[in-house]
Amino acid sequence: MHDLMLQDPTRRKALLTGGGLATLVTVPEIAWADTGRNEPAAKALPAYASWKDADAMIVHSANTMELKRDHMGLGSVTPTNHLYVRNNLNPPSEDIVKDRDAWEIEISGVGKPIRTTLGELKHLGLTSVTMVLQCSGNGRGYFPHKPSGSKWREGAAGCVTFTGVPVKAVVEALGGVVSGANYITGTGGEQIPDGIDPKTVMVERSVPIKELDHVLLAWEINGEPLPLAHGGPLRMIVPGYMGVNNIKYVKHLAFTAEQSPAKIQQSSYRLTPVGVKGNPDAPSMWTVPVNSWLTMPLPSDSAIKAGRVQLAGVAFGGAHPIKGIEVSIDGGQTWQAAQWLGADMGPFAWRNFVLAVDLKPGKYRVATRAANVQGEAQPRERVENERGYNNNSWLDRSVELVVA
Amino acid sequence: MHDLMLQDPTRRKALLTGGGLATLVTVPEIAWADTGRNEPAAKALPAYASWKDADAMIVHSANTMELKRDHMGLGSVTPTNHLYVRNNLNPPSEDIVKDRDAWEIEISGVGKPIRTTLGELKHLGLTSVTMVLQCSGNGRGYFPHKPSGSKWREGAAGCVTFTGVPVKAVVEALGGVVSGANYITGTGGEQIPDGIDPKTVMVERSVPIKELDHVLLAWEINGEPLPLAHGGPLRMIVPGYMGVNNIKYVKHLAFTAEQSPAKIQQSSYRLTPVGVKGNPDAPSMWTVPVNSWLTMPLPSDSAIKAGRVQLAGVAFGGAHPIKGIEVSIDGGQTWQAAQWLGADMGPFAWRNFVLAVDLKPGKYRVATRAANVQGEAQPRERVENERGYNNNSWLDRSVELVVA
Repeated sequence: MHDLMLQDPTRRKALLTGGGLATLVTVPEIAWADTGRNEPAAKALPAYASWKDADAMIVHSANTMELKRDHMGLGSVTPTNHLYVRNNLNPPSEDIVKDRDAWEIEISGVGKPIRTTLGELKHLGLTSVTMVLQCSGNGRGYFPHKPSGSKWREGAAGCVTFTGVPVKAVVEALGGVVSGANYITGTGGEQIPDGIDPKTVMVERSVPIKELDHVLLAWEINGEPLPLAHGGPLRMIVPGYMGVNNIKYVKHLAFTAEQSPAKIQQSSYRLTPVGVKGNPDAPSMWTVPVNSWLTMPLPSDSAIKAGRVQLAGVAFGGAHPIKGIEVSIDGGQTWQAAQWLGADMGPFAWRNFVLAVDLKPGKYRVATRAANVQGEAQPRERVENERGYNNNSWLDRSVELVVA
Repeated sequence: MHDLMLQDPTRRKALLTGGGLATLVTVPEIAWADTGRNEPAAKALPAYASWKDADAMIVHSANTMELKRDHMGLGSVTPTNHLYVRNNLNPPSEDIVKDRDAWEIEISGVGKPIRTTLGELKHLGLTSVTMVLQCSGNGRGYFPHKPSGSKWREGAAGCVTFTGVPVKAVVEALGGVVSGANYITGTGGEQIPDGIDPKTVMVERSVPIKELDHVLLAWEINGEPLPLAHGGPLRMIVPGYMGVNNIKYVKHLAFTAEQSPAKIQQSSYRLTPVGVKGNPDAPSMWTVPVNSWLTMPLPSDSAIKAGRVQLAGVAFGGAHPIKGIEVSIDGGQTWQAAQWLGADMGPFAWRNFVLAVDLKPGKYRVATRAANVQGEAQPRERVENERGYNNNSWLDRSVELVVA
């Protein structure tokens, strides 16, 4: 397992210069004290998400809610009432989920472009994928320069099962993709406010056409009709890709030569150095990076008793299958391989892990570090960037456990 | 696939005697017209299960609720608010889930018997299993002699993830199982009404000790703390075994030479011919039999359009892993192998399947037939028995679809 991990230059330097544990575990100051189970929600749940488990969610705003770390549990999928919500525009009216099969979608960039309905799509094929859905800004709360946007901790991520029609089956029924298409472009069904240039606010994203084998148009999540809050009646799902690419209320699916001209594609959701605005030359928030974090026990738990302790959490490979997971109880000085818990739910899912350790009374800085089959591993430090994207630092997600 | 299926003597006889389709598809008269999504629940949800999805459940009584067939969907696990409930006694007070870690359990029949707490058990190990949980009487509604007990259809079954401590790890920490133990016996924490011989009503079940490698004491279901309605704070879980063996609010775990003397073990939950009372010599309701059923489309769906139709459902192997699933659109005269949908979640889980068929306008009797790796396959006919247990007839679960 150790040889899978990329060299971590920060850590190596610290070791070379004689930096001890105190140097290694400089955890960033964050605005909250812990991941407290008893912490009240910042705001009330909005009407369209009122069915969420209020005790489990942190409501940042009416369009941004995340799951508390200490409510993630050790199930195989995230219950839908625990899944984070992030809308770039206000969701459409609930009316659109009243007659789901009547939802209309235009499909272009194929041999026989059409306007069709969800009901018709259901005839063309059926597939199901269990996958991590994660906001690009998950972990933004750890960035010291306080980027604009929700200060997500770990909870803007979940692992859920989507069921729908493979886009490949749709394309085959419509005469194939036109030549010259480089992207799969989905357009959301949100209402664009009057008097605004649609391109500046519309939710329209493009992903590389090489993902065609994986993309689906989904109407179910976790075995239930997709709720409005999660993009129902129909959502474009791109396994392994950040949440923003998974277009809610999808009303247009196009195969295009170029990426969408919308701001959300051209300059938002781009990785740039701090102080530099997003632009089309910067990397787009497409694939999910490898990541992991401890979910049990946590500092918010009641006293942890000395002796055998089960350290458990979640790990995922992002765009590539997860390969290994290690746990450190000394702030990253030494690592031990953990064991997987439960079934392997496929290449895009997360997986629970556990490591049993014998702990004497004292304080422990517990970190977790995952690697995927591509050889990508979590770095010690986050990569600083203007908008606070892509945080998969193992140090940021480390916690201090007090054993009595 | 076909050679996996056991010969079905009923069908063979029908064919030999020249019985055509009309003979083959004598579907039993049942008290409901279809599996209607819009059918109102018979009764309101009781307080302890008020968090269930009322639209999705059929409430038979305050202690028996099942999921409607047309709400089963195609997720990987059954959402907890859709999981059936069956209590043999009224559940204890909600007080017992207020301080979960304080729940006490006695463990005996081991080298060092103890009374311990859930909080202590959490130190000993951690495991997770995704499995079918099914009531022994699931499908009782199809029995023509109207056995006593809830008239379950398909919905007294679900597939859920339980997380807890392996009983094997508990036993190892306590000096091993005493010699001569043949059973793992769990006792529920229900209040026994005054003035009644406890043995006549107590919920105490024994399963063969060979299951020791699989049994767990679970405190989570689907990543959430186990609700009272499902046996929280602590439940004995026996993967592959009927629901009744999965003891709720478990307060005593014992390794015993004999099966429990309780009525629920000795004479209830025994398979006897119609007219014969349960007795200790009859087979106990231990392992779950192989089973499957269609969940989409169903007769309650709006008009099914001619052309390509995706027939989907769930299949499980019971005590042995599922191996194959076939679908018939002609009442069982011919069968086609279906495809699996989604991830394999382990030997005790169910799995979704799909078969795409091209259908002209007309009526179709659609049946599904599963087989497990042990060579056990669903029979055409249910085995008639006094209490209406173990129904895995493919004919009973078949549906008539009208294609327009």
